Amino acid sequence: MSEDKPHGMPQFGASGRKIVYDENGKPCRTCNTLLDFRSITNNATSKAAAGAAVVTATASVLATNVPSDCPPDVEELGRSTWTLLHSIAATYPEKPTDAQKDNLKTFMKSFSNLYPCFYCADDFREYMNKEKIQVTNRDEFGKWLCNAHNAVNVKIGKPVFDCQLWKERWKDGWKDGRCD
Amino acid sequence: MSEDKPHGMPQFGASGRKIVYDENGKPCRTCNTLLDFRSITNNATSKAAAGAAVVTATASVLATNVPSDCPPDVEELGRSTWTLLHSIAATYPEKPTDAQKDNLKTFMKSFSNLYPCFYCADDFREYMNKEKIQVTNRDEFGKWLCNAHNAVNVKIGKPVFDCQLWKERWKDGWKDGRCD
Repeated sequence: MSEDKPHGMPQFGASGRKIVYDENGKPCRTCNTLLDFRSITNNATSKAAAGAAVVTATASVLATNVPSDCPPDVEELGRSTWTLLHSIAATYPEKPTDAQKDNLKTFMKSFSNLYPCFYCADDFREYMNKEKIQVTNRDEFGKWLCNAHNAVNVKIGKPVFDCQLWKERWKDGWKDGRCD
Repeated sequence: MSEDKPHGMPQFGASGRKIVYDENGKPCRTCNTLLDFRSITNNATSKAAAGAAVVTATASVLATNVPSDCPPDVEELGRSTWTLLHSIAATYPEKPTDAQKDNLKTFMKSFSNLYPCFYCADDFREYMNKEKIQVTNRDEFGKWLCNAHNAVNVKIGKPVFDCQLWKERWKDGWKDGRCD
């Protein structure tokens, strides 16, 4: 994988974000949003998008009508992965054995080495080096993971989540009963 | 976690499937479908669902209008997890180093120990004991994983996928261009 732009290929997508290319010089699906991926792979639309005035209109056309049996873009991959990770926190024991603690640490470390979006994986490894993973019990890990998720939210301009509420969001559902 | 039915709680959900309860005797969110979870937690509807004739109507009401910020049920968790795993296959190297092979094996083993739906995790560990994981290269792992997914599809009555096509589905998109 590489972030270098191959010769003759655009540097930015319809969203204005830099396009990430794979080792063969193709735009990487799991590293770009579908909108940006499409703005590069769909030539006709890509040409239209070169005029800044039409970028917004183009964006709304490009981002719709995605069949559900297509490879995920970076956003779907992110949503799916946080769903798995927070659910792992939700079912992690309140009093884990040493073996369970070791297994969770091993899982998170190996995960950070093979997450499909390579620059996201780089960022996550950096976070793990800076903020030591907490595996003492369910709540400690749940909050550590919630903080890790928030660090990504800040980076991509999404709202920060109140980590006191992680169990309502990922384990028990909200107290107003809307998840029941 | 336990599959034992606590005293006074129903054994089957609105779908007719057995309800899985957690260690506190509550229905487990990540082990049941949302439909079944709701048929147990929503008392009024649960009583209505006791009459077999209204189960279908009840089912369609129960399964709709789920806020996106609720804990995932067993189906959403499954979809999310396969999305991550197949994407890992799609970006796994064509010529991995020994360290990359070891990391993938470690990841899959630790994953099988902590997957949030405990009876799904039991089945997956059993599959891994029977069908040795293939990590030689991208295509070998992608096909092994596709076969593992198909074993689950068979178990839950879903269609089997043609594993020759795993890269179209999870890496490159379909040749008819509908993913581009």
